Parts: sequence; C-alpha cells; structure tokens
Amino acid sequence: MRTGSDLAAIRERKPLVHQITNYVVMNETANATLALGALPVMAHAVEEVEELAAVAGALVLNIGTLSRHWIEAMLIAAKAANRSGVPVVLDPVGAGATTLRTETAKRILEETEIAVVRGNQAEVATLAGREAEIRGVESISAEPGAELAGAAAQQLGCVVSVTGPVDHVSDGRQTIAVANGHELLATVTGTGCMSTAMTGCFLAVAGDRPLEAAAEALVAFGVAGEDAAVGAQGPGSFHVALYDALYNLDPETLDSRAKVEE
Amino acid sequence: MRTGSDLAAIRERKPLVHQITNYVVMNETANATLALGALPVMAHAVEEVEELAAVAGALVLNIGTLSRHWIEAMLIAAKAANRSGVPVVLDPVGAGATTLRTETAKRILEETEIAVVRGNQAEVATLAGREAEIRGVESISAEPGAELAGAAAQQLGCVVSVTGPVDHVSDGRQTIAVANGHELLATVTGTGCMSTAMTGCFLAVAGDRPLEAAAEALVAFGVAGEDAAVGAQGPGSFHVALYDALYNLDPETLDSRAKVEE
Amino acid sequence: MRTGSDLAAIRERKPLVHQITNYVVMNETANATLALGALPVMAHAVEEVEELAAVAGALVLNIGTLSRHWIEAMLIAAKAANRSGVPVVLDPVGAGATTLRTETAKRILEETEIAVVRGNQAEVATLAGREAEIRGVESISAEPGAELAGAAAQQLGCVVSVTGPVDHVSDGRQTIAVANGHELLATVTGTGCMSTAMTGCFLAVAGDRPLEAAAEALVAFGVAGEDAAVGAQGPGSFHVALYDALYNLDPETLDSRAKVEE
Repeated sequence: MRTGSDLAAIRERKPLVHQITNYVVMNETANATLALGALPVMAHAVEEVEELAAVAGALVLNIGTLSRHWIEAMLIAAKAANRSGVPVVLDPVGAGATTLRTETAKRILEETEIAVVRGNQAEVATLAGREAEIRGVESISAEPGAELAGAAAQQLGCVVSVTGPVDHVSDGRQTIAVANGHELLATVTGTGCMSTAMTGCFLAVAGDRPLEAAAEALVAFGVAGEDAAVGAQGPGSFHVALYDALYNLDPETLDSRAKVEE
Repeated sequence: MRTGSDLAAIRERKPLVHQITNYVVMNETANATLALGALPVMAHAVEEVEELAAVAGALVLNIGTLSRHWIEAMLIAAKAANRSGVPVVLDPVGAGATTLRTETAKRILEETEIAVVRGNQAEVATLAGREAEIRGVESISAEPGAELAGAAAQQLGCVVSVTGPVDHVSDGRQTIAVANGHELLATVTGTGCMSTAMTGCFLAVAGDRPLEAAAEALVAFGVAGEDAAVGAQGPGSFHVALYDALYNLDPETLDSRAKVEE
Repeated sequence: MRTGSDLAAIRERKPLVHQITNYVVMNETANATLALGALPVMAHAVEEVEELAAVAGALVLNIGTLSRHWIEAMLIAAKAANRSGVPVVLDPVGAGATTLRTETAKRILEETEIAVVRGNQAEVATLAGREAEIRGVESISAEPGAELAGAAAQQLGCVVSVTGPVDHVSDGRQTIAVANGHELLATVTGTGCMSTAMTGCFLAVAGDRPLEAAAEALVAFGVAGEDAAVGAQGPGSFHVALYDALYNLDPETLDSRAKVEE
C-alpha cells in the first residue's frame, strides 16, 4: 500500500470523479472529494451521464434516495465507464432494507462491471446472500467483517470493502483490515457515502490496484476522522473539521499513521 | 411533560424516523435526527416508501420542493404508516404560498391520519381556512399563535404545533406555550423542518401522547438553539453548534430548562 | 457602484429570491441568501414556479444536476418573471461539459430574457461560441476574463459576469473588474452558485442597474470570502465562516473594501 504517494497523485492530477449519488449527501461527498484534492462532478440525467462517465477518472454509484430514472442513469453511466476502462465503485445504501434497493444493487452488479463495492456489514451480507439485519440504512448485526468481505468478494467477483469499527477490504484472496477512524464518524449522516467517494478518488489514480485503492481510501478517510475528532464538541464541529482534515492530510506522514493488517 | 425521560428513551431505543422531505434540508434533518439520538432514513420512491413507513417509529412528511411523484409517495407512505399505527407528522412548508402546496397539504390531511401538523403561523392559518400572509415560505403575519393553534387543532382534528418567537402546541382542548429557542434559528434555512423532524423523533417514543411529544420536541430543539447561540458568530457557526448542542442535550437537566406554560 | 447602500436595501426590504437550482448547493445558496439578508424560496415544480417567479424580487436559474422536468420549469418560471418585470440571473453550470447543459443554457438564453449570466470562463466562452476547456464543471483555461466578458455580453445581449481569480462583469460597453475574494473559495463546492444567488439578491433591489448589481454582488461575496478566510483551517471551517461573514457584512464600510476597476 502506498496511501501517501497515491494521495499526492490525486492532488497533482486532480482526477474527475463522476458521482451519481443520493440527495442527502450530494453536497457532502462533493466537498469531501474537493477537500481530498480531486474534482467532483455530480450529474444524473440519462441525457448526459454517458458523456461524463466516459471521460471521468472514476464513477461513483450510490443508491440512497433511489428512484426509477436514477437507476436507468446509473446503468447507462456504468456501461459507458466500463467501455472506457473507467473504474466504478458501488455503494449499496440500504440494500436489505427495501426490495427496491436490494434488487437495484444486484442488477447493477449483474449488468455492469464494478471494481469495488463499499458498504456496511448488513448491506454487503445482503448482496452476498448471507444473514444480515438492517434497520433503515444502519447495519445492526452481521458476521465478522473479515470473513464477510472475503466471502462477498468471491461471490460478487470484485473487491469488497466492508466498513465498521474496523474496516475489511478483500479481493477474495487477500483481506486487509483498516483500524483507522473515530466513533464520531457514526454520528454524521453520509460519512459512509463519503468513504465511497474517497474510494472513487483513489481508484482514479490506482485503478489497476483496486484492492489497495479501496484500503488506502479508508486509511486516508480514517486518519482524517481521527484528526477531526481532536477538539470536536459533537457531530457538528466534527463534520466541519473533517473537511479541514481531508484538505490538510499530509502525504509524507500518511503511511506511518495507517493502522493496517494485511 | 417529561422531555428528559422521553429524550433518554429516544437515545436508548434509537427509533427509525422515516422522512420524505425537501431537497434543501434533507441532510440537515437527517443530521439533526442522528444528533438527537434517533435513526433517520430518507426515501421517497413509490416503490419503497410503503415498506419503510410500515416499520418506522414515526413518519415525517415535508412538502417543501414538492413535485408530483413525491406527493404520491407521501400518500402511500402515510397510509402504510396509518395501517401500522406509526404516527405521522406533517410540515406544510409554503402552504398559502402556492396552490400546489396548499392543496397538497389539504389532500394529505384529508386522505390520511396525521398525528401532528408542525408549521409557521401563515401555513397553519392557511390550512385552517383563516387569514394569513406568507412571503415565499416565511410567515409575515397572522393571528396570535395560541388562538390559532387551538382553532386549527379543532378544525383539522389533530395536534397542531405553531412555531414562532413563542411556539404554541394544541390538541384543541389544551394549549401549551413553549418559549425556548433563539432568534438565530430564523437565520438558518431548514430549522423549522428540523423542528418537525424532532417532533417525529419524540412521537416515535411517545406516540400515545402526541400533544406532549410535539411540545417536548420544541423544548428540546429550543434548548439546543439556546446552547448553540452561546459563542456563535453568525448563522454559519450557529448552525454547526446546533448539531453539537442536540447531541449534548442532557436528559437530566432538560425539564428544568423548559420554558413552558400549559 | 453603491454596494453598501444596496446591501442595506436588501436587508431592509428582504426581497424574495426564487431559486431553481441544483441539488448539490440548494441548502448552501438558500443559507447564503438568508445570511446576506434576503428571503430564499426554492421551488421547481412546473405546477408552482409560475406563481412564485411572478411575485419574486428576482429569479435564479442554475443548470447543475439538470433533468428534463427542471428545464421545463426553468423556462416557465423565466417567462413568468419576464412578464412581471422580475430580473433573471442564469448560472450555466457545466455548459461545455455536456451537450445537455450547453443546449439547455442556450435555449434559456434564446427563449427568455436574462438580465445576467454568471459563470466561469469556460462556461461563458462556450455560450459565446469561443474557445474553452472545461473538466467536469471546472474551467481549465480560456481567454482573459475582461475580453471574454465584453465579447460575451455583446454576443448574448445581456450582462455577463465571469468569475475567477479576478472577476469581470460587462454589459458589452463597460467592463468592471472585481479583485475581491480568496483562494479558499475554490475549495468549497457551490461557491460559484452562491455568487449567482448573491447576484439575484442585488438584482432584486437594483434591477434597473444590472451591470452594477452583478458587480456589487461579487464585491460583497468576495469581501465575505476575505473575512471568512481569517482563521480558517481549511475548506470546512472556511465554509462555515462564509455564512457568518455574509451575515456580518457592514454596509457602512463595504464600499471602502471594494477592489474594483471600472
């Protein structure tokens, strides 16, 4: 893993990260992308997603606040990204909570080529056909992340990134555990979605190493969370400090702060 | 009223609060819900709202930035909530400002069972067929809140919560005045919508006492506003501090800070 | 130019500024509008935009995150505004990046009367049929802003406001350069959209002087950016401080802080 040098590459190349994401977090993931050093572009119209996805450095699909036209746009965009060799990350927000979300996530996985799935335990377990309990969009319980990530990666045929108190990223052969982060991340809506956007940013410069890119994104985001928690008075001030922390991440020291087990 | 113990119940049970709300405040009401201690889920697709509303602790309907599909989804969700005994709170944003909003709020009130309507003076007066003046979504003038809340509650057959410099909550027999809050609340968009989301959170644990739940939500939100105003430099820092304050509300001392007249 | 007294007029009259804008920045432009002292109203349904635009002080159209129904609503709203003499400002977000956006911006300019176009260099160059390079929604390169603003104003027949490190506003005869602002503005998504909303606020009180109104908006917003940068630790804290700074802008000293060349 080379989180520091990949972050430096993001800041130098400023890759375009096309995001079709939910209404709740659109501003937040765009700002996190900018703060990290990449260029977000948010667009969902079926008339324009093909044009944008084909020239992006990465495509981020997020199925929160889904509706019918958006599903169509996600499929068109992912197919355009696939044709152009643009890596795609899928955030299956709420898979397991409603039939619409479960089936949409599965359909995207079947009809397009996804580089990384980034979700919580219940979402990933649902997609991999395993036991899960979800309440709204929050994972309540599921099997340990390491086993789940490995099994889901084999089942889904892509890198799977399962976030939680400790994150687990697997390509089905190798599994990386990432222990960076802070409990305040769970008090702000959309931090999971932000970690998916960060995954897109790292994929844009390290798309040939999707397992590493996905783990590096969680290291960088987790370290920013740790920095943001210093002095935070609660979720509001933590949220604000998170953008400052992403912006101020130091590529030189980032690898030394990674809490990773490979 | 038992605001402190109901807040403690919210934090312990973490009820799911399903919100179909407007684009402007979706992130804000989700974050306020999380900061208070409940679990927000935002979903508006006609294909999934029935599934979510039926298992939620409360349903929040907010008609800002309305469009046709959303109206249909609100009606489906409210009917599902009604069948499952899930309390519903309606925020008639901009009723009186446009025909679409006035008619949609009235239609929801006619076709479904609403536990609480939470609005400003002009919105509530419009729905109750009384004199009102609204400019955009801001109430300009209307009759005093206490009389209005009581009359509207009788007219609409549900609890009515009229917010303003002093809030008035009535079930048509009893009216509670809540004087907590701070004038900076009026400088941030969506604080009214947040108070509606807070009403949903309290209904989720005290749905059998909707008058109290609605008043308690305004006490809790108002006290958080008072705390957030300490040290705020303007609407930006106040807005951030509001989430911190909601998160840090102390159930032990909350009742002693209530400025309530019953 | 009389930025200070026009700001004082905004705060006294609290004009209604109707905004049909993109999902990413809706909360942000509403809050910036409120912080400056005007009243935002966000509405996009074809059933209600005519009613609102006709009574607004100004109409803001922003084509980020476009989709078909929104285009229709923008045209209906702009025509209603035109009939009522309400000034309209257009933000052609991403014109040049996709065919949909370029064509929609051109269609709005052809079918309705726009008072001010506010965009970055690439967006404005695209609309004026000149050389431009855009990456996502970021301008990469284009001709100098002064020449571009003047030429585009003549070509489009309205005031053109081109923002960048130095902003240029022209009506085709006179061009005003505004050097207020701070580089941190480029690290937060939607600050361009906010400057368009600010343009709407100033047009609402100085619609008979659109060139001045557009330049004054950039002075006010730039000065707020300068104030917000003091003590900011990065984009998160800067973003928060920006609302505080807009709220605390002093009409008495504002003109003395303008960095303007006419």
